Amino acid sequence: MNRFLFLIAALLSLSIQPALADQPSSGGDAPLVIAGQGSFFVGGHDLHSSHLAQDPENSISGVEGTVAVDQVYVHYQRPVDAGTRPAFVLIHGCCLTGKTWETTPDGRMGWDEYLLRRGYPVYVLDQAGRGRSALDISAVNAVKNGEAAPETLTGARWPGREATWTAFRFGPRYGEVYSGLQYPIEALPEFWKQMVPDWTVRDGNPSPTVAALPELTAKVGGSVLVSHSQSGIFPFEAMAAGAKNVVAIVAIEGTCPSQTENMSVYGKTRILLVWGDHVPEHPRWGPRLADCRKWMATARRAGVDASLLLLPDVGIMGNDHMLMQDRNNLQIADRILAWLEEK
Amino acid sequence: MNRFLFLIAALLSLSIQPALADQPSSGGDAPLVIAGQGSFFVGGHDLHSSHLAQDPENSISGVEGTVAVDQVYVHYQRPVDAGTRPAFVLIHGCCLTGKTWETTPDGRMGWDEYLLRRGYPVYVLDQAGRGRSALDISAVNAVKNGEAAPETLTGARWPGREATWTAFRFGPRYGEVYSGLQYPIEALPEFWKQMVPDWTVRDGNPSPTVAALPELTAKVGGSVLVSHSQSGIFPFEAMAAGAKNVVAIVAIEGTCPSQTENMSVYGKTRILLVWGDHVPEHPRWGPRLADCRKWMATARRAGVDASLLLLPDVGIMGNDHMLMQDRNNLQIADRILAWLEEK
Repeated sequence: MNRFLFLIAALLSLSIQPALADQPSSGGDAPLVIAGQGSFFVGGHDLHSSHLAQDPENSISGVEGTVAVDQVYVHYQRPVDAGTRPAFVLIHGCCLTGKTWETTPDGRMGWDEYLLRRGYPVYVLDQAGRGRSALDISAVNAVKNGEAAPETLTGARWPGREATWTAFRFGPRYGEVYSGLQYPIEALPEFWKQMVPDWTVRDGNPSPTVAALPELTAKVGGSVLVSHSQSGIFPFEAMAAGAKNVVAIVAIEGTCPSQTENMSVYGKTRILLVWGDHVPEHPRWGPRLADCRKWMATARRAGVDASLLLLPDVGIMGNDHMLMQDRNNLQIADRILAWLEEK
Repeated sequence: MNRFLFLIAALLSLSIQPALADQPSSGGDAPLVIAGQGSFFVGGHDLHSSHLAQDPENSISGVEGTVAVDQVYVHYQRPVDAGTRPAFVLIHGCCLTGKTWETTPDGRMGWDEYLLRRGYPVYVLDQAGRGRSALDISAVNAVKNGEAAPETLTGARWPGREATWTAFRFGPRYGEVYSGLQYPIEALPEFWKQMVPDWTVRDGNPSPTVAALPELTAKVGGSVLVSHSQSGIFPFEAMAAGAKNVVAIVAIEGTCPSQTENMSVYGKTRILLVWGDHVPEHPRWGPRLADCRKWMATARRAGVDASLLLLPDVGIMGNDHMLMQDRNNLQIADRILAWLEEK
């Protein structure tokens, strides 16, 4: 493409930006102009295993060999006009994958595309051991072949929809919907297909995903780490593990750090804790929100720029645990962007 | 975006097309103009399980409930000027995911973006039970909890790099490279991270991915089904299962159908079998190529428009099993497009 065409493309992209900023529409019917897209892995290490297959005769695999484990799949897109805007790194939660941030179950635009259209580079990852990031299944083959005891297996958790309904706050009981719920409840059959088994076992140790984040932020540069639920703690742990370039942390409905951590690691990193509706009275999430309030108070006393965005407090009602997929998901993204851009 | 800007976008995109056709460059430095992108699932069904977790006390999952299984994750991108061009549906092979078609391990453009830049809609899927498509792990939890015998486990195959080296024809022995090999061998550490366990057990039955393909082609419209290796047979099976709108099948280094199948299902669907270098003499792939030649002869006698593209026959040397990632991957894509566009 010659320089003239490039100028048209750049002009076109610049023209989209102000239009988007001025209207509530997502601009989703306008062509998307992308400077670059692609995927790669961060983290990971070699593992030698004698249990790579159950069938020793399998001609392609054999049972013994070297594989890579604990790597993290990352897909990215960069707008043509990112300027000095930081990149959003979107980290999904339990029993989900990077799909979380893409097209909503009822077919609306996800945060991945919306943030890109707002001029931000976007990096979407699959946690280590899930989605396109390989899981070590040696133990399963070893037990299958009688070379290890069943107790050595790591089990997975894979919430059924009955338990998920209340845990994700679609309603007070399975099949009952909260009045004013923002989730596109008619599209739940599509949402259930997003859910995958989660083999995460922490045993007090950080996830391999956390270990890979410093490599990612070193590569990406200025980053906004967005976590959700089970990954809520990851950005905090990644900074404790030495992650640089973290402009902001946006932790959506996740566990907050302990009160005794070293607050000096945050420096100028700004932190936003985002929670939806029906939280304080919820047996699972209420205590977590209370802990987050306590942590925030401690952090602020230590000079950390930490804020809470409890959506009902600002008049945004009806949001559940999957607020990035709710009907007002772009309104919530706008709130986060307004917070990010206010400094 | 107003109509004027849309016209510029359309013009811009039209301008990229001829430029790409005239030069070997991928156009990868030019902005990418996309009419739409997103993701969804096809296929799948409900499963009620009593083994969704190993820990009955797990407050989010519980051990019993209903989950969705056998669905297929699909990510798509559409160019602004697709016109009447069919969509490419890219189906990865064994022990890999949709990542296969994205950025190559050494950072070059994958077929997903190249085909899009050439004006084709592109759909990339993760096979059922792999990547972002959930795997049923009930049996693992059942064995872990002592409620089922180890023999009930389905083992996975996960080829180590030592076995993969020769199976994927990087060289005659692990660590030895074929002279003139097109694979970016220096980037193998990144490639190994793409490999994931493959729980595929067919037992003579079609994969759930095959069952989902008719739904996908009904949704997409005119489609070119591209399969690779373990998925080689899927497009053929999908047509036997009633898939409509299949303009062409491009089967890359996969098993061909049996000689006795019903050839009438193909109608006007054109079929291209693509194979790389060092195949006839390879103990794994040589017999498969020979079978494909036999099938092609039978198919042609039945009036099917079936062709073989054995790359060394047209002077393209050094390609291995991962030819969509080879240094000359765009040249091979061009060959396939030339075949597709010749009618």
